[in-house]
Amino acid sequence: MSSEKTSVAVDPAKLEELRALAQQGAHIELPDWVAGIHPSDIADLVASLDSEAQQLEILEALSDAVASETLAEMEEHEDRAELLSALDESRGAALLQELADDDAADLLGEMEPDDRDRMLAALPSAEAGEIRDLLRYDEETAGGLMTTALVSVAAESSAYDAIAEIRRQGREIEDFYSVFVVDHLNRLRGTVPLADLILADPDAPVESLVEPMLAVAHPDTDQEEVGRVMGRYNLVSIPVVSQEGSLLGQITFDDVIDVIEAETTEDILRLAGVSDEEELRAGWLESVRSRLPWLTLNLVTAGLAASVILSFEAVIGQWTFLAFLMPVIAALGGNTGTQALAVTIRRIAVGDGLGPNHFEAVGKEVLVGLLNGFVLGVIFSLFAFFWEGGDPRIGLVVLVAMWSNIIVAGFAGALVPTVLDRLGVDPAVASSVFVHTLTDLVGFVMVLSLASTLLA
Amino acid sequence: MSSEKTSVAVDPAKLEELRALAQQGAHIELPDWVAGIHPSDIADLVASLDSEAQQLEILEALSDAVASETLAEMEEHEDRAELLSALDESRGAALLQELADDDAADLLGEMEPDDRDRMLAALPSAEAGEIRDLLRYDEETAGGLMTTALVSVAAESSAYDAIAEIRRQGREIEDFYSVFVVDHLNRLRGTVPLADLILADPDAPVESLVEPMLAVAHPDTDQEEVGRVMGRYNLVSIPVVSQEGSLLGQITFDDVIDVIEAETTEDILRLAGVSDEEELRAGWLESVRSRLPWLTLNLVTAGLAASVILSFEAVIGQWTFLAFLMPVIAALGGNTGTQALAVTIRRIAVGDGLGPNHFEAVGKEVLVGLLNGFVLGVIFSLFAFFWEGGDPRIGLVVLVAMWSNIIVAGFAGALVPTVLDRLGVDPAVASSVFVHTLTDLVGFVMVLSLASTLLA
Repeated sequence: MSSEKTSVAVDPAKLEELRALAQQGAHIELPDWVAGIHPSDIADLVASLDSEAQQLEILEALSDAVASETLAEMEEHEDRAELLSALDESRGAALLQELADDDAADLLGEMEPDDRDRMLAALPSAEAGEIRDLLRYDEETAGGLMTTALVSVAAESSAYDAIAEIRRQGREIEDFYSVFVVDHLNRLRGTVPLADLILADPDAPVESLVEPMLAVAHPDTDQEEVGRVMGRYNLVSIPVVSQEGSLLGQITFDDVIDVIEAETTEDILRLAGVSDEEELRAGWLESVRSRLPWLTLNLVTAGLAASVILSFEAVIGQWTFLAFLMPVIAALGGNTGTQALAVTIRRIAVGDGLGPNHFEAVGKEVLVGLLNGFVLGVIFSLFAFFWEGGDPRIGLVVLVAMWSNIIVAGFAGALVPTVLDRLGVDPAVASSVFVHTLTDLVGFVMVLSLASTLLA
Repeated sequence: MSSEKTSVAVDPAKLEELRALAQQGAHIELPDWVAGIHPSDIADLVASLDSEAQQLEILEALSDAVASETLAEMEEHEDRAELLSALDESRGAALLQELADDDAADLLGEMEPDDRDRMLAALPSAEAGEIRDLLRYDEETAGGLMTTALVSVAAESSAYDAIAEIRRQGREIEDFYSVFVVDHLNRLRGTVPLADLILADPDAPVESLVEPMLAVAHPDTDQEEVGRVMGRYNLVSIPVVSQEGSLLGQITFDDVIDVIEAETTEDILRLAGVSDEEELRAGWLESVRSRLPWLTLNLVTAGLAASVILSFEAVIGQWTFLAFLMPVIAALGGNTGTQALAVTIRRIAVGDGLGPNHFEAVGKEVLVGLLNGFVLGVIFSLFAFFWEGGDPRIGLVVLVAMWSNIIVAGFAGALVPTVLDRLGVDPAVASSVFVHTLTDLVGFVMVLSLASTLLA
């Protein structure tokens, strides 16, 4: 386990000093070194404080620049919108003005409508208008992710003029990685790497340095698709353009890292039967709400699958050993199904399931099931054979039931999510219930029907 | 489902034209427009060709710059190392020289030792030495991810001189996002945003513009930790420094997106009982090798848990209805355990499990289990009560067995991965087997022991 930590600049003792100050309360003054702590770290500290009063102590004592970034780095479930609402409008508006417009829109989007309107009214009307525009987009689309803050230059200007223009625009935008090139109608022509501009002859027209865009997003592009394309082409940012080609905004790599993490969490939780509405740090009642419906559905499906057992009570009364065999064979089918589901859903998520034949993976899982099922069937069948005093009929029941259930599990585990995905349904939600109900059912039916026939 | 696609510049018809050319064979010449296709897309095309001969046709016809990037964009399991080995040394060395040293090292690391030595011998000795240095690092550490190609300037130079220096170094490095500042012993002092340099007074010393590093990595820092820190602080690149503080290399955001995707795939697959050695596009025999050991372990644990049933055959013979109850109650325990496991493992993975009390989450899962278990217990208990002709004893058996199993499942699903993580063991590997064996066992034991007592 070589996992030496990175060296991070934050000093835990300073964070504890801040915590003590917050607890002391009543219009504290913060030491100068606070400016040197990353807002991400202050955000964690604020989120961990015991009361909203203590949280507000810190926020009120921080400069506008740091307080606003602290809110931006906090999470929705840490009630950052409530904190912002608790500030008076003029301070709240000052913080919102410090933020990139996408971050401001995210915060406002989490507020109660009344508080949101109050804050928007306190902002200069141009900025309020921009943020209102952003609030109209679904938060899981490119429009919801993008910022309108970007650096763009005219295709017809010279490298020298472009650098002067970038210098001007750059004063207002903190970090920028891409310089976009537009025509006189603000239609996107491409990008010019800042490094190329600096390296170029000052008289060279920007036109001659333009690199065409590898990919652009539209406001309604799904955020998962944005993440996929940026990851695939290693893009530090992607422009968002209207259908007419006008440059509306950009999405940068840091938003995409957040999207990839959020989408992955969603995939893992869905596969496990946890609603994607549930935050990782949700309170217990929210977790109950998110999970109970799925468990209830599972109770119904597991009950239905097991109900075949009710038709075979006579056989079980005679051969009680079957009550031991059935859950084991159903469990191994379930495990095999989970393996095939996880591999298939992950292939779909990373966009790597798409050979010339979409159903190739299904054939592979059947082959895997044929071999794994045979090996497991033989092992368990030998055990059953010897345990039941050398009865070859029991050995045969176990071998055939286990083998067939594992083949079905591999087949369904690969087929169901592939079909759901092609139908445009998120495969992680429904696949797991369906596949596990099927493997339970096949396990029980195979054991019981073979036993009725062979042991009768 | 608003998931309008991004507009990507690649034209599928052109890719098909390339495919046809490859199939035609015998020293083809490629049309000029090939230079406009992203190597990621060419890589996919090459990987999908039927034979190595066709793949080599394309690689041999591409320019060094495009052919090398195409190999860099292919995956290890697509046998890119074999393709490179099939080229003669002088072409192979020419391609390796075009690549960033980290990509070259990755490719060489996948080759057979003989082929690797042959290629290294054909490289200029300085470059071969650099690559040999990189090959010494574990590929899942910062050393294995980093490139030594970076842009650095001396702290004592002026902004004007620094830009001239960047212009000189920048000719050799394609995309760079960070300019590192070092002292005369090459010890890292910090970074200076390119934008700030351009915006600054040309005479300003770089010293005055230096921003201290928020975080640095060491060569043996685990790649997962690198990803976590870069995501947390939104870093476009992170420097890698020796223990003495010398600047060795850098890791850029695109590598981190790959790391996050790879680590996530690993987490999902492990949770589902698929070895992290299994590639998503693995052949069927590799999949058997990766999954059969885990299934065999599961057969043993499921068999052991179910073996308690063998001690209660007399009770089952009398009350065959129990054979129906047990798998349902065990399944619901398993589902609850999976939910708690997924949430806990994901919290650990994103570094968000660490409140002041590490075991807070365990208490929450117990509360969730108390309520979910009660609801499910009541539903299933009412069903059993009516089905079995209104016997209240059956209702009680079901209620207590279901409720207790679901509480245990939530408790174990949160506790086991937390404890394993604190012991330094990857939680996803062992948790799942342990928790599901436990919920099977508790389900069976509760049903059978309660039934023996109450129904006797």
